[in-house]
Amino acid sequence: MKVHGPESFERAVRRGRVQWLEHADLRYERVTDDLPGLPRGTVRLAGRVIRGYPHIGRVYSLAAGVQRQFGGPFWAEEKINGYNVRICRIQGRDLALTRGGFVCPFTTDRLPDLVDTAILDSDPELVLCAEVAGPENPYLEGHPPFVAEDVQLFVFDLMRKDRSGFVDLEEKYDLAARWGLPQVPVYGRFGPADTRGLEGALARVEARGGEGLVFKADQVRVKYVTGAAALDDIRTHVWNLMELPPEYFVQRVLRLGLFLDEHGRIHEPGAREALGAAFLDGLAAMLEHYRAQGRVGRLFGCRLRERAAAEALIEHLQHAAGHVQIRTRSLLHRNGWWHLEFERIYPVINGILHEALRGGVVVD
Amino acid sequence: MKVHGPESFERAVRRGRVQWLEHADLRYERVTDDLPGLPRGTVRLAGRVIRGYPHIGRVYSLAAGVQRQFGGPFWAEEKINGYNVRICRIQGRDLALTRGGFVCPFTTDRLPDLVDTAILDSDPELVLCAEVAGPENPYLEGHPPFVAEDVQLFVFDLMRKDRSGFVDLEEKYDLAARWGLPQVPVYGRFGPADTRGLEGALARVEARGGEGLVFKADQVRVKYVTGAAALDDIRTHVWNLMELPPEYFVQRVLRLGLFLDEHGRIHEPGAREALGAAFLDGLAAMLEHYRAQGRVGRLFGCRLRERAAAEALIEHLQHAAGHVQIRTRSLLHRNGWWHLEFERIYPVINGILHEALRGGVVVD
Repeated sequence: MKVHGPESFERAVRRGRVQWLEHADLRYERVTDDLPGLPRGTVRLAGRVIRGYPHIGRVYSLAAGVQRQFGGPFWAEEKINGYNVRICRIQGRDLALTRGGFVCPFTTDRLPDLVDTAILDSDPELVLCAEVAGPENPYLEGHPPFVAEDVQLFVFDLMRKDRSGFVDLEEKYDLAARWGLPQVPVYGRFGPADTRGLEGALARVEARGGEGLVFKADQVRVKYVTGAAALDDIRTHVWNLMELPPEYFVQRVLRLGLFLDEHGRIHEPGAREALGAAFLDGLAAMLEHYRAQGRVGRLFGCRLRERAAAEALIEHLQHAAGHVQIRTRSLLHRNGWWHLEFERIYPVINGILHEALRGGVVVD
Repeated sequence: MKVHGPESFERAVRRGRVQWLEHADLRYERVTDDLPGLPRGTVRLAGRVIRGYPHIGRVYSLAAGVQRQFGGPFWAEEKINGYNVRICRIQGRDLALTRGGFVCPFTTDRLPDLVDTAILDSDPELVLCAEVAGPENPYLEGHPPFVAEDVQLFVFDLMRKDRSGFVDLEEKYDLAARWGLPQVPVYGRFGPADTRGLEGALARVEARGGEGLVFKADQVRVKYVTGAAALDDIRTHVWNLMELPPEYFVQRVLRLGLFLDEHGRIHEPGAREALGAAFLDGLAAMLEHYRAQGRVGRLFGCRLRERAAAEALIEHLQHAAGHVQIRTRSLLHRNGWWHLEFERIYPVINGILHEALRGGVVVD
């Protein structure tokens, strides 16, 4: 771990790549763009720097990928289809930061339900890197099948304040076990040539509907996703076909094709049907929704402890949504929770459908 | 028809949107970008302006589309999957201009085989707008199944030099019949509410593997393509997945979905399988080609009358290819033709496959 403190943050300030934000009475700064050695989402609060979680490179080939990326043994952990947070203790409070470097009002509110942060009593310099996933999350339309309700948190890395790099893996596993942290599933330690072992781990991930694997040596991280995850992404995101960068779909089709090719499944009729269904069933459901509701929008629901957190969440979502509309449907106190329901409405696809189904002309 | 002569062209010159080019001993100018009232591809040769063929709006709904776009009767013609040319007589020579406004060395060389231009002896002010399609065309990877070899030309509009707008349809059909011009198939005249007649025309287009229909009133043109055409585009262009704008695929998936929805076929398993196959069979063939040849590239072949035309064609293709590589494979004189074979090599997908199949990491 290298020291990674206020000096390099000052460079981001001088380059105009830092934004001031507020969370309750706390003012903090976030880095708005990737800078050399300083990822977007790096945050400074109360004089301490929490480094952004770096981009993780992807391999398209399992066997060739681990052989080329690792010179020795590495660990395989499950990649969870959720959103990335970093949890840190600042001035006695536990905060959850999003990948982009915002304090997440939802995760911060729900932390007591998601993770026991006693580890931070013992070592407040630690930062927990985790994925939050489940059907009642306010950000993502997809979720893993093994989180049936609400959300769960899965720790996958530890960092330290004012430092770049990760806590070494043996120490991470040791601390996680000692403090009972909820971890991502760990499939074990492999050698680069252990293709059979890796295929076995991949089969276990696929069987439970997992998204893929992340391979780790102390400071190296490489990800690999299943073909099913590419299909899930397509099926889920056809609803906002026109709001995403269009390469979103092209990349997933290519990932799926290379996945099927490596595992000898590209000529299976079931694979063709599954890809066609991901697009067409998604579009059919979207059109049905449009005709029934008069618009294309996705309903989100989540539960919070505090009403103020729900209100801060809506504000945060509206700030981050760009031209997507966030419309609050209800905020009700029930069984000890504040239940928030809101809708994400996608203006581009709504505009296209409104014109197209009424016989309008599009020049493309 | 409005006069559309040198004055408006001079505006394009003043705005710096005009490029000087040469074809043999002829110097000419082309408009490089759409300007108000002056489409990209407008050309000035020997003091005469040949207006660019305008963009044609697309409807995504057949029934609603014609009802909204036409107040009275209109004609339905077949849309041909080829490339667009305008043919004009300049200083006694017949020239074919591409959509972009280049003299096409291939089509110009082959005109005597494709169309009898006696009509231009009678009226040299006319400009023939036509589609050239077939397996031996130098531009497009797809072609209609009913052109089994070489290329064919299909006239679909007439314009006049120094004018904007089209020759009226009755006059066009009359001139085409009188001079024996090879025309696009014409499916007849319909009223906006004649959904049954239009469905019948569409069924005939689909049965022969046609791309779609263009609906025309005198100055109005609207296009509508079949679901099969969207699938063909996907299957053909998966090979240059990464060279096309990524919205290419997203648009075709949406077109297919809306087509299947309108015609009650979106839930047919055959539709899913067909879409999945368009992507996956295309990718599988591309990977097989990559492994066999060491690169992804498409072989093109066409025949010309003159060796000089073949050389000018290669130069034109290299100029227009951007970062796609054009590599000449052979130019041989055989049975009275110059047979040209060349390869289009797609660097982006080659770079990705080279890395991905060897275990390289991609940050996306």
